[in-house]
Amino acid sequence: MTRIDLNCDLGEGFGPWRMGDDAAMIELASSVNIACGFHAGDSDIMLRTASLAKARGVAIGAHPGYRDLHGFGRRPVPGLSASEIETMVAYQIGALQAVATLAGHRVTHVKAHGALSNVACADAMTARAIATAIRAVDRALIFVVLPNTELAKAGEAAGLRLAHEVFADRAYADDASLLPRAMPGAVLHDKEEIAARVVRMVTERAITSVGGKVVKVPIDTVCIHGDTAGAVEIARAVRDALAAHDIAIAPFSEAA
Amino acid sequence: MTRIDLNCDLGEGFGPWRMGDDAAMIELASSVNIACGFHAGDSDIMLRTASLAKARGVAIGAHPGYRDLHGFGRRPVPGLSASEIETMVAYQIGALQAVATLAGHRVTHVKAHGALSNVACADAMTARAIATAIRAVDRALIFVVLPNTELAKAGEAAGLRLAHEVFADRAYADDASLLPRAMPGAVLHDKEEIAARVVRMVTERAITSVGGKVVKVPIDTVCIHGDTAGAVEIARAVRDALAAHDIAIAPFSEAA
Amino acid sequence: MTRIDLNCDLGEGFGPWRMGDDAAMIELASSVNIACGFHAGDSDIMLRTASLAKARGVAIGAHPGYRDLHGFGRRPVPGLSASEIETMVAYQIGALQAVATLAGHRVTHVKAHGALSNVACADAMTARAIATAIRAVDRALIFVVLPNTELAKAGEAAGLRLAHEVFADRAYADDASLLPRAMPGAVLHDKEEIAARVVRMVTERAITSVGGKVVKVPIDTVCIHGDTAGAVEIARAVRDALAAHDIAIAPFSEAA
Amino acid sequence: MTRIDLNCDLGEGFGPWRMGDDAAMIELASSVNIACGFHAGDSDIMLRTASLAKARGVAIGAHPGYRDLHGFGRRPVPGLSASEIETMVAYQIGALQAVATLAGHRVTHVKAHGALSNVACADAMTARAIATAIRAVDRALIFVVLPNTELAKAGEAAGLRLAHEVFADRAYADDASLLPRAMPGAVLHDKEEIAARVVRMVTERAITSVGGKVVKVPIDTVCIHGDTAGAVEIARAVRDALAAHDIAIAPFSEAA
Repeated sequence: MTRIDLNCDLGEGFGPWRMGDDAAMIELASSVNIACGFHAGDSDIMLRTASLAKARGVAIGAHPGYRDLHGFGRRPVPGLSASEIETMVAYQIGALQAVATLAGHRVTHVKAHGALSNVACADAMTARAIATAIRAVDRALIFVVLPNTELAKAGEAAGLRLAHEVFADRAYADDASLLPRAMPGAVLHDKEEIAARVVRMVTERAITSVGGKVVKVPIDTVCIHGDTAGAVEIARAVRDALAAHDIAIAPFSEAA
Repeated sequence: MTRIDLNCDLGEGFGPWRMGDDAAMIELASSVNIACGFHAGDSDIMLRTASLAKARGVAIGAHPGYRDLHGFGRRPVPGLSASEIETMVAYQIGALQAVATLAGHRVTHVKAHGALSNVACADAMTARAIATAIRAVDRALIFVVLPNTELAKAGEAAGLRLAHEVFADRAYADDASLLPRAMPGAVLHDKEEIAARVVRMVTERAITSVGGKVVKVPIDTVCIHGDTAGAVEIARAVRDALAAHDIAIAPFSEAA
Repeated sequence: MTRIDLNCDLGEGFGPWRMGDDAAMIELASSVNIACGFHAGDSDIMLRTASLAKARGVAIGAHPGYRDLHGFGRRPVPGLSASEIETMVAYQIGALQAVATLAGHRVTHVKAHGALSNVACADAMTARAIATAIRAVDRALIFVVLPNTELAKAGEAAGLRLAHEVFADRAYADDASLLPRAMPGAVLHDKEEIAARVVRMVTERAITSVGGKVVKVPIDTVCIHGDTAGAVEIARAVRDALAAHDIAIAPFSEAA
Repeated sequence: MTRIDLNCDLGEGFGPWRMGDDAAMIELASSVNIACGFHAGDSDIMLRTASLAKARGVAIGAHPGYRDLHGFGRRPVPGLSASEIETMVAYQIGALQAVATLAGHRVTHVKAHGALSNVACADAMTARAIATAIRAVDRALIFVVLPNTELAKAGEAAGLRLAHEVFADRAYADDASLLPRAMPGAVLHDKEEIAARVVRMVTERAITSVGGKVVKVPIDTVCIHGDTAGAVEIARAVRDALAAHDIAIAPFSEAA
């Protein structure tokens, strides 16, 4: 039976503030990426999210970002050294690992957030620093990466187990990179179209670019979003479509 | 041979700022408590401090405090729940554990900082929350406590290994509690007096109160400060006096 | 014609996060209190809120709080000196004054937020420090205070113009102080009851305590909340009831 | 009699941390730029610095930077809109204006800090946003700018009074721009050389480039640094050399 993981970013509030519908999304995802306090999240929200995940049998991962609460980690932070990126990432992973113990849960993956991820897809130094941090903290952690990027290369070079990710609602260029958000058609909104597209990607282990090109890529997990209008409905449609095609939804961390 | 540990708070800078003379103090201490980013410290300073300690064979511990960079964790934060204290402490321990791996070092103890420690000495709920966090993260971690306090009780109840601490330069009341800083004579400044007093405490495993009372207490480590004028000289005098009395200085984490 | 002001706390988001329904509440209030970046708010949200208020003819005030983003300024910060409170309040007022110029608007009042307000109601030092800051920055600023409190006394002693505030949805003790939130019946939820009660308070310039005692107090403004479920409906009911009783709603800053 | 202003960045600590020798530098400068809480500084330090300046008859200016305490405002923050820069700058100026009232002092100039200044020297949008904020808050504020930059252009276009600044210890390229710090010879260290150079710049109202080219530029103030080893001695040498050449040192804000 074909199987796939659905991952979602959760715990992106801070102090009194919340973002997205965590309670709804945790019902739909098989793995969740938990913000670790640098771009969002705090120790209380981390515990709550890890506890929710534990109760639902959902895998958890650290979702480290740049130190930038005000900008939500969406802006690159230029000029950081490799060591500064390593410590920034290690700090966040370790913080979640420790908080997760209070929930009786265990961190099994790491996925970089926002601008840190975007920068690392193209910048080998940043990608290597992230991989170095993961390997130092726990070489059994699974590294979620976009296929065909510096992130994937760095993870492989570091000997980490990789989980390759595609996006449910984003269009791809011919080279299998994400179309920049600012471009027309870069973000899909129709839930049926998105669901059908996910089924096709998972079945074929390939993406179809905006130019119609089919590019084979490894696919272990599909990212679904929880922080936009209609996000929950889209995620439900994806889930239903996968079920209708007898594709099992399960954490990549449980794959053989 | 009698042995004792000398512990010191290090890594208390933040971003561009520094506090105290870490390079001098690390030569004098056998265990250091590293700020974890809530009242001071950041991931880069944590790495630097852990690396220094590794190079000098000095044990490292997490030094968690309240989330209060501006106030340096010196002000109580009223109204936190047990769970909020647990996650706050666990988060900081885990962060340091992970960063320490990048230095090839390992966290072996935990000591609460500033107001968090002061509050926990008297407040059983806070003390228990700290002990709960430590046990959840790693029950082999040694918990540094002041003797005869709620901290010590909570650590014992949680089944943690304790390291009892006395202060080199602080006067004690008849009940073996610290004289409040605001009281005259609460803080000692004469380095010879301080050194002689440390030797006596370590030799007798007892404190002598301002009232002249000798109170037997367990003593595993002596706290020396690095952030005041003359601190380094005082610490050197303590170290020399211990050596002159054939008292070995070694991390409590290495004791049998 | 009887007139009254309705005030509401707005702009309580931070970075990517929002709180309450600012767009709805600004239609219902005649004065708004804008968070200034210490417990909530940032310069962008401050501009947006001031611009909204300008467009709707609503008066704006600074809503200074303790430096505590994570706790939303709801926890007291013990141990601050009078000077530290003065600079903390002045800083926030000045920041809003400057941002307001970009919106073509002008700050006409100041109201303390959360724990800072609660502490200042009972602590004369804190109350005086707030009043001192306001007077230093601009002695024409109106100081919003709860009647019969240290805040009111300090404002009067400082020679500031006061606006006395009552709460639409809170029960009062016999001494005209607010019943603590934790007590049963402390917070009212029925919108018709709340509306009727506001009309009575405004008409009689008196509060009726939970014990049935009628206490005359000066009343210049009624606080309505925007951050809870049903808040907007309650505010609308209050507004409608006032209109039905021919009570004009207008900023206290425009009163003769 | 020829006159010149010496300006210096002060108040660059935060909470428990300090940077540079403010007490020594305030004796040597005629204008000081006070950090406003975004890259450094807090309301208490702002008050202390403004009070020191008031007592010594030294002019004060706001020294706004990017929101980046950890990086000390030395890293560009990409992607900010013009409005975001305007509110960021206005907020900081207003905060200092208000705190200064508690010291009985008055803000008379504005100088951008670190990366914000560097970016604005070359980026017209950023430069215009800073000028727009200054003009909105108080069009009498003097705008400190580097000659021949977008900052200078934007200030002029906004109708602001400008104070043109040169650096005592930095080498200039042939186009009168600063040689990047990373280049050999970019930063001067010999105090006699620096002092002689300042006298020449002030006397000739020109800079001499590393290539020997003399470029006429307007010069109203010379920046002296206080945060490096030897900084105080260099500043004293500059001051003495100016005095020896009968050049008066006085705030540019007091010039006719």
